[in-house]
Amino acid sequence: LAAAPAADWRAIDPQTMLVMDLERGGRIVMALAPDFAPVHVSNIRALAATHWFDGQSITRVQDNYVVQFGDASKTPLPSGVVSPPPAEYDRPLAGLGFRPLGYRDPYAEFTGHVASWPVARDGDRAWLTHCYGILGVGREAPPDVGSGAELYVVIGQAPRHLDRNLALVGRVVLGMEALSALPRGTAVMGFYEKPDQRIKIRSLRIASDLPAADRPRLDVLDSDSKSFALWSQSRANRPESFFVRPAGAIDVCSALPPVRVRPG
Amino acid sequence: LAAAPAADWRAIDPQTMLVMDLERGGRIVMALAPDFAPVHVSNIRALAATHWFDGQSITRVQDNYVVQFGDASKTPLPSGVVSPPPAEYDRPLAGLGFRPLGYRDPYAEFTGHVASWPVARDGDRAWLTHCYGILGVGREAPPDVGSGAELYVVIGQAPRHLDRNLALVGRVVLGMEALSALPRGTAVMGFYEKPDQRIKIRSLRIASDLPAADRPRLDVLDSDSKSFALWSQSRANRPESFFVRPAGAIDVCSALPPVRVRPG
Repeated sequence: LAAAPAADWRAIDPQTMLVMDLERGGRIVMALAPDFAPVHVSNIRALAATHWFDGQSITRVQDNYVVQFGDASKTPLPSGVVSPPPAEYDRPLAGLGFRPLGYRDPYAEFTGHVASWPVARDGDRAWLTHCYGILGVGREAPPDVGSGAELYVVIGQAPRHLDRNLALVGRVVLGMEALSALPRGTAVMGFYEKPDQRIKIRSLRIASDLPAADRPRLDVLDSDSKSFALWSQSRANRPESFFVRPAGAIDVCSALPPVRVRPG
Repeated sequence: LAAAPAADWRAIDPQTMLVMDLERGGRIVMALAPDFAPVHVSNIRALAATHWFDGQSITRVQDNYVVQFGDASKTPLPSGVVSPPPAEYDRPLAGLGFRPLGYRDPYAEFTGHVASWPVARDGDRAWLTHCYGILGVGREAPPDVGSGAELYVVIGQAPRHLDRNLALVGRVVLGMEALSALPRGTAVMGFYEKPDQRIKIRSLRIASDLPAADRPRLDVLDSDSKSFALWSQSRANRPESFFVRPAGAIDVCSALPPVRVRPG
C-alpha cells in the first residue's frame, strides 16, 4: 500500500461524507454511496444539513450485528426529505463499472467492486453488500423503507441475509472503534434498557459544511487500480512468512478497499 | 428453537469447557474441541488446571480481528504440556460425521458441521473455520505452532484466510460481549500500549474444577438434529414478514449452532 501511486487513491468527496461526533468523545466518519441509494442519500444529507441528528442518540448495540442511531419516529421531517423514498435495495447493473473479485460467494452470483464499494450482482441487478462497517437505513416492516432518520452500522460477521432487504447508503471510513467497542445493550435486540445508557450524538454534519480545518481529508484505494488488484491478490494469497498455506481466495467483506488519511 | 425437543440439545461437557473470569468483572465461557486439536486442547487443560492464566492479561484487542490473552513467552511450562505440539491445523475427514450446509463458500470445497462445530473440508481433510467467537492458539512464525499458553478469539468478520494456518481449539459459548466490547488497543496490531491498559484475568478454570454451583450448565443445538436443520433452513430463508427477499443461502459463520443455558 505504501508503494501505491497517488493516482491509485481516490479522494472521498466532502459533499458525500458524514462526520458524527459523540458527546463523550469519539468521531466517526462515513462515506456515502449516492449511486446505490440516491434518494436515501439525499434524505440523509438534508437531515444532516438541518442538524437532525444533533442531540439524538445511539439507542441499540447488538453484539455481532449492528449499532443503531437516530429516531425514525420523530416528526416533522425537514423539508427536502422524501418520505417515503423508493425501495433502493438494489439497482440496475447497467451504468456501473463492476469489477469481479473472482471467487465464489454463498449469497450472490458474483461479488466484486464498483468505484471502491463492495458490491454483489446477478444477471442485471447490483447492490451493496452488508459488510463490517457498512451504513444502512433502519426501517419497520414492509412497506416501510425507512427515510434515513434512523441508521445502522454493521459491527460483526457480515449479515449478508439483509442484502437487498434494506437500503445501504455508505460505509464507516474512520473511527469504527468508537462504535464497535460500545457496551452492548441488554434489552431485546441489543437496545439499551435505560435512556441514560444511550450515547448522545453531539453533532452529525456533512463534511463540506465543517470548517476546512476540521474536515477529514481521506482517500480510498481505487478498486479499478493496479494497486488494488495487487493488494487483493496478496490478501488472497498471503506472501508473508507467517502463513503456511495461502487461502487462495478472499470474500467481498474481507476485501474492503483500504482508506487512508491523505498525506501532506 | 423454543420448540426443539430436549434430545436435540447436547450438553457441553464441563471437562472440555473453560471459564475465564476477568478482574473488573465479566465471565467468558469457552467450549473446547478435542476432536480437532487434541494435543493443543490437552495442553490448554493442563495450563488451566495449574492456574497458568490466573493473573495474566488480555494484551491485544484489534478491531474487526482478534482479542488475545495469555503469554507464550513465560517459562517453564507446567508438566503435562507438550511443547511443541503437532501442527493441528487440519485433520483427516475420516471418522467425522460431516454434515454439509449445502451452500457455496469462497474458501473451501464444502462447509458444514461436525458435532455442532463449524467445519470446512476438501477431499480428505477437515478443519474448524475462523468464525466470530472461535478460539485459537497464538503462535510465532513457522515452525512455531503455539503451545496453548497464548490464545485468541475472533471479534470481527470471519478471518477465513487463517484457516489451516493456526490451531483452532474451541468457541466462546457465553459472555462474548466481555471480549468484543473491550477498548481497542492503539499500538501496532491492536496491542495495548501501556501495561496498565491490559485487562487482568482473575482466573481461568476447567469448568469441572469449579464448585458445582458455579459451573455453567450449557447446551448447544445438535447439528445432526432435525431442529438444527429447520433452524438453519429458516436462517437461510427468513420467513419473518420483515424480509422482502429471502437470501436463499447461509454461510458457515452465520450458522453457528445456538447455545442455551440449560433449563431447570
